[in-house]
Amino acid sequence: MEDLYKIQTPENLRKLNIEEKEALAENLREELLNVVSKTGGHLASNLGVVELTIALHSSFDTPKDKIIWDVGHQTYIHKMLTGRRNKMETLRQLNGLSGFPKYSESEYDCFETGHSSTSISAALGMARARDIKKENYHVIAVIGDGALTGGMALEALNDAGCSKTNLIVILNDNEMSISKNVGGISSFLTKLRTRKGYKKSNAYIKKIVRKLPGNAGDNIINFVRKIKRVVKQLIIPNMFFEELGFCYLGPVDGHNIEKLEDVFNKAKVQEGPVLIHILTKKGKGYIPAEENPDKFHSTSSFDLVTGESKKEKALDYSKVFGETLVNLAKKNKKIVAITAAMKDGTGLTEFAKKFPNRFFDVGIAEQHALCMAAGMAKEGLVPVVSIYSSFYQRAYDQVIHDIAMQKLPVVLCIDRAGIVGNDGETHQGIYDMAFLNIVPNLTIMAPKNFEELKQMLEYAVNLGSPVAIRYPRGGENKEVLFENINEIKNSIDESKLESNINNKTLENYKEIKQGKAEIIKEGQDLTILAIGKMVAKAKKVADILEKQNINVEVINARFLKPLDENTIIKSVSKTNKIITIEDGIITGGLATSTLEVLQKNNMASKFIKAYGYPDEFIKHGKVEELEKIYGLDEQTIANELMAKLEQYIK
Amino acid sequence: MEDLYKIQTPENLRKLNIEEKEALAENLREELLNVVSKTGGHLASNLGVVELTIALHSSFDTPKDKIIWDVGHQTYIHKMLTGRRNKMETLRQLNGLSGFPKYSESEYDCFETGHSSTSISAALGMARARDIKKENYHVIAVIGDGALTGGMALEALNDAGCSKTNLIVILNDNEMSISKNVGGISSFLTKLRTRKGYKKSNAYIKKIVRKLPGNAGDNIINFVRKIKRVVKQLIIPNMFFEELGFCYLGPVDGHNIEKLEDVFNKAKVQEGPVLIHILTKKGKGYIPAEENPDKFHSTSSFDLVTGESKKEKALDYSKVFGETLVNLAKKNKKIVAITAAMKDGTGLTEFAKKFPNRFFDVGIAEQHALCMAAGMAKEGLVPVVSIYSSFYQRAYDQVIHDIAMQKLPVVLCIDRAGIVGNDGETHQGIYDMAFLNIVPNLTIMAPKNFEELKQMLEYAVNLGSPVAIRYPRGGENKEVLFENINEIKNSIDESKLESNINNKTLENYKEIKQGKAEIIKEGQDLTILAIGKMVAKAKKVADILEKQNINVEVINARFLKPLDENTIIKSVSKTNKIITIEDGIITGGLATSTLEVLQKNNMASKFIKAYGYPDEFIKHGKVEELEKIYGLDEQTIANELMAKLEQYIK
Repeated sequence: MEDLYKIQTPENLRKLNIEEKEALAENLREELLNVVSKTGGHLASNLGVVELTIALHSSFDTPKDKIIWDVGHQTYIHKMLTGRRNKMETLRQLNGLSGFPKYSESEYDCFETGHSSTSISAALGMARARDIKKENYHVIAVIGDGALTGGMALEALNDAGCSKTNLIVILNDNEMSISKNVGGISSFLTKLRTRKGYKKSNAYIKKIVRKLPGNAGDNIINFVRKIKRVVKQLIIPNMFFEELGFCYLGPVDGHNIEKLEDVFNKAKVQEGPVLIHILTKKGKGYIPAEENPDKFHSTSSFDLVTGESKKEKALDYSKVFGETLVNLAKKNKKIVAITAAMKDGTGLTEFAKKFPNRFFDVGIAEQHALCMAAGMAKEGLVPVVSIYSSFYQRAYDQVIHDIAMQKLPVVLCIDRAGIVGNDGETHQGIYDMAFLNIVPNLTIMAPKNFEELKQMLEYAVNLGSPVAIRYPRGGENKEVLFENINEIKNSIDESKLESNINNKTLENYKEIKQGKAEIIKEGQDLTILAIGKMVAKAKKVADILEKQNINVEVINARFLKPLDENTIIKSVSKTNKIITIEDGIITGGLATSTLEVLQKNNMASKFIKAYGYPDEFIKHGKVEELEKIYGLDEQTIANELMAKLEQYIK
Repeated sequence: MEDLYKIQTPENLRKLNIEEKEALAENLREELLNVVSKTGGHLASNLGVVELTIALHSSFDTPKDKIIWDVGHQTYIHKMLTGRRNKMETLRQLNGLSGFPKYSESEYDCFETGHSSTSISAALGMARARDIKKENYHVIAVIGDGALTGGMALEALNDAGCSKTNLIVILNDNEMSISKNVGGISSFLTKLRTRKGYKKSNAYIKKIVRKLPGNAGDNIINFVRKIKRVVKQLIIPNMFFEELGFCYLGPVDGHNIEKLEDVFNKAKVQEGPVLIHILTKKGKGYIPAEENPDKFHSTSSFDLVTGESKKEKALDYSKVFGETLVNLAKKNKKIVAITAAMKDGTGLTEFAKKFPNRFFDVGIAEQHALCMAAGMAKEGLVPVVSIYSSFYQRAYDQVIHDIAMQKLPVVLCIDRAGIVGNDGETHQGIYDMAFLNIVPNLTIMAPKNFEELKQMLEYAVNLGSPVAIRYPRGGENKEVLFENINEIKNSIDESKLESNINNKTLENYKEIKQGKAEIIKEGQDLTILAIGKMVAKAKKVADILEKQNINVEVINARFLKPLDENTIIKSVSKTNKIITIEDGIITGGLATSTLEVLQKNNMASKFIKAYGYPDEFIKHGKVEELEKIYGLDEQTIANELMAKLEQYIK
């Protein structure tokens, strides 16, 4: 044990014999469990690739040979074996190791990943670069069966297949992407896995051939048909990859280091693109994770013995969304729900159970999810598509070209919007407000708390035009209670709105009116305009300032688009000063829209400060830590405002 | 002839017998040629689908049955047969028929398209909606072999294949997408087309079976191997689709109306998803187009007899880009060029000839193009990716997640940026500045003329970090000549810049400095900040105003990001008034960045007006016509400014 702990680099790893490597696998697995049970993180996928990672670094000459890990959340073992074993306790913590490959951490992390289905494209690019530079090394993409349903992976397979470039794609088939796999590709992978019968079919052929009379006569047609069927059974599945131009090797037991090394050595001497199909088990070696790979896909800290999460399972926005949608769907049969391989994460598990015929998991295929939703909306349904903010970047053209241009009533639910915390830069949902803000015909909302999410969702499914609702990871801020002080009555053309809405359902969400903000608290000295979860922060800032006798007006924007120009102008006319707070980048979102509204009204000089994230990628860390770093905690904001207001008074 | 002209609806069409339909095909083809030779438009693809369109509307009960045309530029015949035959002369003209399906024109245009590879997703959505509504009609997606390389089409095939939903996909295989097809899918389609030997193989099987001895003995293994090979030959190609869960029908001659109707009738009674493979010839029936389908893919008006374009072939930005890149690539062996099925359109034909090993056409696969470029850049190459502005929307996540996050030196060339004119709303490239502006680590430039494009391209390939250059469709404004009045020396940290740049190449593009604008003309009364082709317009506006003794300072921004704060502030400090002009939507681009810079410097009140396109989709028409409609012609701008300045003086 002591000795195996010294194995922290591929150089040392390569000196071990096969038994030692197997012992190392157990050792790493144990350590991984210890670490992740404390730090939280992606467990099941990492438990599944322990042997694969050992075999890869044993067989290939890393870092000269390049391994690209698709998605990248399965690189913990890789990190442990490439000089970072002693830093694993810092995993996903502020200033600690990232949960994804980062070149800044190690040259072994040769291409950074985070979103799914990029590895084959990147690997093909690297392999082609190698050929142009006339250098000589292997490039290996490791991709899961789930990620293979992503359009970019298929585009890349198509291109790589006829490229004649030396390239190794390892298909890590665990029969289990984040949600259950879907689609034709998945079904023939299943055939490939089971292959009930390579031997059986062979025997069968022998049998029927023996029965064949000397002269086949009229039976020949039947015979050919049977042969076809048998051979189909026998050799077809790998034909998919071979037709695309890959040499197919496998399937291989992904937990057998010796067999893996064998097949890797075979692949190394092949010319052209090779696909190695390996079979692994998610959660391998830890019973709670083997039995519940879904639960242990991404976990918070947990008790190692029981597998129980240490964090109290609190209600979160995703669950509130899911429950509300179930209720709405009971009343309105036109509502359907769509997810891109994130049924549990987006809170749609219950919906899928209650309405199996109205629930569609399309696989990791955000583009298709949105365009299919457009088709459904065109035929009169109300599709609600829940996807994480950072993955909406994948379906941007579909939002513009297929949904907004035809004004189709698709409800875009943007989960994990804003800073998500420990998953870091690839997963921070800070761009959606800015990139959606410029899409014509689109309404964009963000709720201040659970209750408002319910209202907005009901409003959205009845709106009759494209609409987005963004909400954060996790729960609402329980410390802040909102009372609705008054309803604002001006500016809305109610007749126009109602024409779009089925009047019967106009009940619970009547508080939400198109393009109308909500005044949370009236004040004279300063306007704070906030949106989404930042409304609670604005309230807290106001409370702090109140103690200094600064009387703040707090406005919940509710709608980023259309922005409530009247309410803003009215408020600023009174207070003469406005700041904005949003959980996203400053440019393009609430701050920009507000500044533009003020400019139009010759009041731009009254815009004091935009609170949000600057023009950079935001690393991992706890949400509160990151907010503090970027000056977005309530005390920092309050202090800054006090100083500024003093200035103004001077 | 007279009679056939009356066939303007599917109802009338269905009454014809097969000979009449064939005559109609010739009649429509002739008329199409007459129209498009005058209006310009997509010719070759429409000539290729005359019989297909007739057969579809004959066999299916449109508009109850829904036809979704992928890309949609092949719908001219469809338009002629669905009540718009007498409006064809207005095709692609302002207020005339669109070159793409539009629901506002006809209920037969049941789903709007423009970008590639959406039809299967949309059709699946419509089919699923039909099932949920328990209605009964057919949904047909018509998709070309080129569009099938798009990731979304593959995502949709995967989902549809195991859906058990009744859905008909017609693969219109013309062996010819816009550029030559690439990839594994293309190569097995070729096999499928040629199928040397369905009959031949059958005969071969009979032959070897006859030779078989009563007892197969040791020969059995060889025998099985042979059978495998033969059966592979015989049945494999369609296995791709069948493995995905489709019933495969075809291939069928796509110019034989009778055979097409037959296969459609077969498809109608099938349960589950069906793929019909039809073979057509692009440009069919017009020799110049058959021989040069590329040239007649999208054409301006031309002489019907010779096939020669009536428009003088002038130099355009794409060609200048292509020529410059060839020159740069001669000096720098690390430069590679990537296109997504737009070799000719993006000006890369010459590059592909000169450097076949450094040129990559990945098919209609923008996502893969950008992510592969990231891989290449990671390994030290300088990939230059040229894609049309509106198609960059497809690769947004790759720009953010794969390129910018890793700061990889990929050069994004954004062709057809700004208003493109007759192709209309799906192709207007007006969003790129706004959606790229928010991407960290990205430099964004736009040249004022050909010369500046050359300089910027040389600058970009040497920059060493992610960089975008946007330029319009067509040529430069020849009326406006620029003299460089002075170089601005302040604010740039040259040492920082040079560390990124290979000093040896710092020659021709030394005028371009990171984040530095160019003062085109000095003035006292007003600052006009423009970018890209709008700099010429700004100069013209200034010239008009000069005659009214209004002394304008004209600044060419050159960089949208980083924006030249110093030059702007200095100028506005002098003139006290600034307007911006850009060829894109107002929000998120130059106007927004300028306003933010002014606000930071407490000068927001000096921002007078943002000229650009509003928050709506811009329809088709000539560029000059659209500029006039949106108040962007120089005279309108000048008049408005004169009025405004009077106001100011008052």
